[in-house]
Amino acid sequence: MVTVENSDAVFPSGTVDGVELTGHVPIPPSRSFLATFRANLKETFFPDDPLRQFKNVPGSRRFLMGLKYFFPVPEWLPSYGHSTFKSDLVAGITIASLAIPQGISYAKLANLPPILGLYSSFVPPLVYAMMGSSKDLAVGTVAVASLLIASMLGKEVPPSQNPTLYLHLAFSATFFAGVFQTSLGLLRLGFIVDFLSHATIVGFMAGAATVVCLQQLKGMLGLQHFTTATDLVSVMESVFTQTHQWRWESAVLGVSFLFFLLLTRFLSKKGPKFFWVSAAAPLTSVILGSLLVYFTHAENHGVQVIGYLKKGLNPPSLTNLVFSPPHMAVALKTGIITAIIALAEGIAVGRSFAMFKNYHIDGNKETIAFGMMNIAGSFTSCYLTTGPFSRSAVNYNAGCKTAMSNVVMAVAVAITLLFLTPLFHYTPLVVLSAIIVAAMLGLINYEAAMHLWQVDKIDFCVCMGAYLGVVFGSVEIGLVIAVAISILRVLLFVARPRTTVLGNIPNSSIYRRMDQYSEAQSVPGVLILRVDAPIYFANASYLRERISRWMDEEEEKLQSKGEIGIQYVILDLGAVGSIDSSGIDMLKEINKSMDRKGVQLVLANPGSEVMKKLDKSKALETIRQQWIFLTVAEAVAACNSFSLHPCKSDLANHETDCDSVV
Amino acid sequence: MVTVENSDAVFPSGTVDGVELTGHVPIPPSRSFLATFRANLKETFFPDDPLRQFKNVPGSRRFLMGLKYFFPVPEWLPSYGHSTFKSDLVAGITIASLAIPQGISYAKLANLPPILGLYSSFVPPLVYAMMGSSKDLAVGTVAVASLLIASMLGKEVPPSQNPTLYLHLAFSATFFAGVFQTSLGLLRLGFIVDFLSHATIVGFMAGAATVVCLQQLKGMLGLQHFTTATDLVSVMESVFTQTHQWRWESAVLGVSFLFFLLLTRFLSKKGPKFFWVSAAAPLTSVILGSLLVYFTHAENHGVQVIGYLKKGLNPPSLTNLVFSPPHMAVALKTGIITAIIALAEGIAVGRSFAMFKNYHIDGNKETIAFGMMNIAGSFTSCYLTTGPFSRSAVNYNAGCKTAMSNVVMAVAVAITLLFLTPLFHYTPLVVLSAIIVAAMLGLINYEAAMHLWQVDKIDFCVCMGAYLGVVFGSVEIGLVIAVAISILRVLLFVARPRTTVLGNIPNSSIYRRMDQYSEAQSVPGVLILRVDAPIYFANASYLRERISRWMDEEEEKLQSKGEIGIQYVILDLGAVGSIDSSGIDMLKEINKSMDRKGVQLVLANPGSEVMKKLDKSKALETIRQQWIFLTVAEAVAACNSFSLHPCKSDLANHETDCDSVV
Repeated sequence: MVTVENSDAVFPSGTVDGVELTGHVPIPPSRSFLATFRANLKETFFPDDPLRQFKNVPGSRRFLMGLKYFFPVPEWLPSYGHSTFKSDLVAGITIASLAIPQGISYAKLANLPPILGLYSSFVPPLVYAMMGSSKDLAVGTVAVASLLIASMLGKEVPPSQNPTLYLHLAFSATFFAGVFQTSLGLLRLGFIVDFLSHATIVGFMAGAATVVCLQQLKGMLGLQHFTTATDLVSVMESVFTQTHQWRWESAVLGVSFLFFLLLTRFLSKKGPKFFWVSAAAPLTSVILGSLLVYFTHAENHGVQVIGYLKKGLNPPSLTNLVFSPPHMAVALKTGIITAIIALAEGIAVGRSFAMFKNYHIDGNKETIAFGMMNIAGSFTSCYLTTGPFSRSAVNYNAGCKTAMSNVVMAVAVAITLLFLTPLFHYTPLVVLSAIIVAAMLGLINYEAAMHLWQVDKIDFCVCMGAYLGVVFGSVEIGLVIAVAISILRVLLFVARPRTTVLGNIPNSSIYRRMDQYSEAQSVPGVLILRVDAPIYFANASYLRERISRWMDEEEEKLQSKGEIGIQYVILDLGAVGSIDSSGIDMLKEINKSMDRKGVQLVLANPGSEVMKKLDKSKALETIRQQWIFLTVAEAVAACNSFSLHPCKSDLANHETDCDSVV
Repeated sequence: MVTVENSDAVFPSGTVDGVELTGHVPIPPSRSFLATFRANLKETFFPDDPLRQFKNVPGSRRFLMGLKYFFPVPEWLPSYGHSTFKSDLVAGITIASLAIPQGISYAKLANLPPILGLYSSFVPPLVYAMMGSSKDLAVGTVAVASLLIASMLGKEVPPSQNPTLYLHLAFSATFFAGVFQTSLGLLRLGFIVDFLSHATIVGFMAGAATVVCLQQLKGMLGLQHFTTATDLVSVMESVFTQTHQWRWESAVLGVSFLFFLLLTRFLSKKGPKFFWVSAAAPLTSVILGSLLVYFTHAENHGVQVIGYLKKGLNPPSLTNLVFSPPHMAVALKTGIITAIIALAEGIAVGRSFAMFKNYHIDGNKETIAFGMMNIAGSFTSCYLTTGPFSRSAVNYNAGCKTAMSNVVMAVAVAITLLFLTPLFHYTPLVVLSAIIVAAMLGLINYEAAMHLWQVDKIDFCVCMGAYLGVVFGSVEIGLVIAVAISILRVLLFVARPRTTVLGNIPNSSIYRRMDQYSEAQSVPGVLILRVDAPIYFANASYLRERISRWMDEEEEKLQSKGEIGIQYVILDLGAVGSIDSSGIDMLKEINKSMDRKGVQLVLANPGSEVMKKLDKSKALETIRQQWIFLTVAEAVAACNSFSLHPCKSDLANHETDCDSVV
């Protein structure tokens, strides 16, 4: 075959017919395998370059800086002043008033002792205040993770039969979640959370909220027995097969408090000044409900109450962790799944508020902080915590300035644990149900779903898949469906890349998609195609077929008009970011089959990776470098000037081999 | 906020500073959801547009054409002539001489009665001759699928304990494979085979060949007992724990024939004229081996022979199919996995030879033909068949012209079944082992692996993953590893897209990657970034961080030089083929955060999908359309002309809001 001509290009630099010719596309200098590998590794795992600040710093200071990386307290504590503390104090007390009833409610949702909800609002916030980098995140338990714990652990060990083992498994799951999160952060794998798309989260959260609300029918209707399944069908069956067990006292109380809570939420939406109305409402409900029960002795008339809560701070639970079969497996599985869900919510919340206040959150660092907070929690009788949206929003609205508001909340909860637990003895469960329902209704973001429908139909499908999966299947099924659709979408994008025909925009050397720009005009005898994705094994044979179909269609169109056929096919590779060995083989094949038809394949604007691989795979021996151009305009100019060449036009008509002349 | 200005663009069309201004990027007319959905569906499932020929054709002819689509015989049979038949006769007899010993060998490999190998070379080739569209494919059983059947079915039902049930399960697996293949073809899902990349297949085939060769140690050494596992460690253990059982007669015979076969292969590589040397070698070996045993009575000295083979054509096996638990599940699983493997090999082989002869293979149609051939096979005592590479290559080299060579082979095999089976009584098993080993050594394509290492390191990893997985784990493990790495690669490509800084190529309006084109020069005050992948949920937050890092790095560089900071960031979206709702949100967010820093975000060359979604999501209210340009050159020209505007430069320095002026 003909050897590669690197230097003596056939078309010189300069200007021909108003088109700038800039010479040929260079093959980038080859880098060593190790250098490439290192660069790729860095781009994959350290895209935010967290070690940049460590450059040119002596060893001892480097250690201090590393410490500061994991414990960013010194960044803000030295300059911490009186007025900042006043803001944090107000915010901290506000979130504590929300944290206490919510904590108790969610612990009930997880079928755990209610006091665990308070324990979980004491230790983890302190750990986060030291290690976290968000100024607005308020730490606490979340409804979805609580529900997941109840459904996943409850399947293995029913909490009514063996409450101690169930409790120990919950601690173990929290421990595994913490270890998993810490490892993800240390291994710089925090980005796997990004694979839960916004659409997935909208659908998943709405589904989980629906399921959680359905579960509250137990408390609202005062039912004693209830299904352990979470899907709509089972719950409805459970509710409507025991209509004779419904307690109207419970239902009236529940609906009244729900109405009160929704009313306060409506009021607080009037303006940011009124945020405290809805922030204080849960605690107000608890106080009102408790007083009502205390004075009317409604606990004897079918209204269930929390009952005795032990006084005192978190007891240690390190020795309760379960590390042996047969139950360790379920704790591990629960831990990993809840860890991912909790992480997704916490990081999304942290990032949103950081954006509002224009500071930066390091996802991997946050992941480590969450992990450490859960490990510490699992040692001190807490269960899974993260940064819930509702509590963080209240924190932000209450004017928090630093993570100190978490410390204030922790202190307030500690005081409650030490002195005030007896006050919750008469708190009716139905009020807790109302608090959960009110919080959950805010998570059903139908507006976001409508927006998805308008902007992106596939995202809407992902969202609905997650929602319906959670509501009619289970939380895990919904998650699997949503992630599967999301990944399938990415794969399908690569498997079926868009190819478009380009045309010349009149009076310019610009070539653009003919279906987007109506004024674009085709060039006679030249078919210009653009491939909009990397060329990979997954799409190589599709592209081969699609390109040949474009050629057939174009030929047909030209024949019907009585014009000359295609002599050149220009492939615009500008959007081909990457190519693999199957892709290179495909290019070689289409070049060969075009050669047989007397059509010349021309490549325009290949990226450096494409050029490198064309060179290494010796494809440049068949697709010769003088047919590779920097721009489509240059390629077209070259085709036009070459068409006048007698040999090439012969080639197109009589299939003579012209190699010797070229 | 400011309303969208569609018509009155700030920068008029024309030429400014030698840069063509072509007005603003249009928002494509919105298409109905159904039309988009239909177009996408067509592109996904009918990319080759197989129904195009049916357009403008009356109903009755359409039915005939549909029939012709599935049975393409009429395409070539009417013009079939004497000389074509002569070519096909030679080719058919040649492949029959290969098919008979190979069929018996592979049936032994699958632990099935040897006669099944002959049955499988009779019915399936006839079906394929009617339905298949390849002119060069020779139908038969393959080693890898045979091995898979042995290992997957053998785990559930050891063939030594219950040979009848094992046989019936093999028929059932073939039936399920056929149904699965047919459904894939009818549902236009043949493209899932493309997800087995070339690299996967190279590694997987080499691994399977290694494993098959290792299994032949049983026959070569004349061992009676052998492990059922296929991994290297188990096989080596099995071989070396029974060294006292080795039979030298067997080994000498085996090594001699292997040497003979490899020698003929070496000779036939001298030129295409000698292809028959290696094609006839297996049958010659069988004849020589049988004669040797017959005259020396070596069967009494440790050389195992095939023994009695029943005379007669395929008996029906329709009633033997197993459709009930507990064994149906394993047949189904085996059927699906072997179907995919067989399909991948058959379609790759068909496509390769079609390319040589410049005709087209419809993957989905071929898939249907393979499926029907296996369904028919499962009714007539055949097991899984496909188009093996070795046999098809011999067919091609022997000068076959049409699928008639398959018919000739089937007739030759039928004659053998009717009259010649007694001749194989004394054929030594060790000769069959030698035939298998010789065929398998050809599948270990180390040159392709070396080529992968040079061209694409990740493809090499995929290849080695598949190889090592098969050799040290099992065939299924190897396949899962390879597919997992391949998919991970696609996901990683989308999760970590390349972003590059563009610079101006001197004396032109072309902007290219500064790391690829050393002559490219940056524009003062303007940072031009290019994103090389679709913007999706999986990379939205990465891109946000990466873009802010590019800006930080650039600012640092400019500060150290004492130049003015960045005033504009131009994002070249030319390679962004698609965007989802998370991507749009990300663009809005970076626009907002740049606004706060007094930097203007400018978009260049967005595709129609991006423009459509920017419009629908109301992002054009924040990223205003006058900052969206057709080319980078226009965007730069606009930035430069705007920098002279006093308000904007104020904005950059003092962070005043300029909205009222703009």
